[in-house]
Amino acid sequence: MERIKRNERMAALTQMLTASPNRIFTLSHFCELFGAAKSTLSEDVDILRETFAAFGLGELSTVTGAAGGVRYRPAMSRQSALAFVQTLCQELQSPSRLLPGGFLYLNDILCMPDIVRGMGVIIAGEYYDAAPDFVLSMETKGIPVALMTAQSLGVPLVIARRASKVYEGPAVNINYVAGSSGRIETMSLSRRAVHEGQRALIVDDFIKAGGTAKGMMDLMGEFGVNVVGAAFVMAMAQTREKLIHDEKALMVMHMDAAAPSTLRVRPADWLSCEARA
Amino acid sequence: MERIKRNERMAALTQMLTASPNRIFTLSHFCELFGAAKSTLSEDVDILRETFAAFGLGELSTVTGAAGGVRYRPAMSRQSALAFVQTLCQELQSPSRLLPGGFLYLNDILCMPDIVRGMGVIIAGEYYDAAPDFVLSMETKGIPVALMTAQSLGVPLVIARRASKVYEGPAVNINYVAGSSGRIETMSLSRRAVHEGQRALIVDDFIKAGGTAKGMMDLMGEFGVNVVGAAFVMAMAQTREKLIHDEKALMVMHMDAAAPSTLRVRPADWLSCEARA
Repeated sequence: MERIKRNERMAALTQMLTASPNRIFTLSHFCELFGAAKSTLSEDVDILRETFAAFGLGELSTVTGAAGGVRYRPAMSRQSALAFVQTLCQELQSPSRLLPGGFLYLNDILCMPDIVRGMGVIIAGEYYDAAPDFVLSMETKGIPVALMTAQSLGVPLVIARRASKVYEGPAVNINYVAGSSGRIETMSLSRRAVHEGQRALIVDDFIKAGGTAKGMMDLMGEFGVNVVGAAFVMAMAQTREKLIHDEKALMVMHMDAAAPSTLRVRPADWLSCEARA
Repeated sequence: MERIKRNERMAALTQMLTASPNRIFTLSHFCELFGAAKSTLSEDVDILRETFAAFGLGELSTVTGAAGGVRYRPAMSRQSALAFVQTLCQELQSPSRLLPGGFLYLNDILCMPDIVRGMGVIIAGEYYDAAPDFVLSMETKGIPVALMTAQSLGVPLVIARRASKVYEGPAVNINYVAGSSGRIETMSLSRRAVHEGQRALIVDDFIKAGGTAKGMMDLMGEFGVNVVGAAFVMAMAQTREKLIHDEKALMVMHMDAAAPSTLRVRPADWLSCEARA
């Protein structure tokens, strides 16, 4: 094999590491691939780490120990995250997005790969330390952002359904009270989708009173799964207490349902904090 | 600003180009960012192109003309795609995946970011030339692979729903005959989701008789949208003619419903062709 130059290794390493976020690659894996010495690869990784940091492209870290190696985690600085969310807020405040009944048209935003990827990176950044085994979402609108969060975390996505389906096998169904309508709804998850003792991160598009989120937590309880966090694209500001706690939303929406022109969408407070906790 | 070395530019360029697939970046954009001359950036791009090609990491191309620049497209060689799909087929043939009624448990596969990303890259590769404006999927199971296809193509995802929702605004509803059950079902899409004259690529998880796919085509017809292709993760092999034509599936499933042990899952024929058409 022809000798591979550092330039080329840089490009290839970057592509491979960023295509599999949060996965640990051993240095030996790359040594073999590139026919280079470990010391050379170590230098490569050092240069990469600095470059990623300098351009705000994510975090490259060296994990020590028996299962150690190099790991890439997509990350956005708090400042970039705030700017990203502020741009979204601007867009969402457009009067043309207001729908009858005080609803806001969000679907396009929730389906643009670039945008949901950014949201997923920001959300994942808050939960790397919680080390979830999977991301749970309730069909349908939250699936894209939940998938992108799962991708950044390097874990599978699990989708709860509104009814059990023949192609999902034995399922656990629970009933929950939808916060906004007060109606009893059903949520279903295949028995084989998750396992007792796993850790779940809930990701969904919208939280109002938290009824659906509470349902997802109850569903995880039935499986013996520990919920390590809950994140949403948008939260409805309201005085009534939510049914769940410690959730994180990217944006907060204020609106007096009787006067839709009062609509205001702003970044969530935790994004505005200068430094990470 | 400190002078940036080629090594560092390589890493940063790779990350930025691959994070926004199928988008054209002008060389001037990078010249400004790195404080480097156009000739230097041109050389960088040449090295990148060769490196990506050598390691099978996708296609970097230079687009000429007024709107020209550099564009990255994720791509898998036909050989890698076949190997990827063969591994999936092996996994899916496991008897533990068989469900009553001759259904196959696919949900985990359809929700693993790495796997749906690979599927999306393979599907996108077949439709770059058709230049769709968006990817259309029908909720729920096909959404992850459709999103990843949309990401590779650099276009939005559009999700058709089973019923119109208050938070989607005015919607167009159509009825269609679900191929497998023969029942009349409804499919709904927000009026503002797509525009007349656009081009759609349909991506979904499963095609049996093609009733749902036909429904999506009819729905696009109502919007004056041109369907440029239809791709599926899995097709059911059957003698009865499908309701749509020219669809592409990654895998084909054979099973005699009366004898589930006859289950066989194989890569679709077009993947086995040595060379691209």
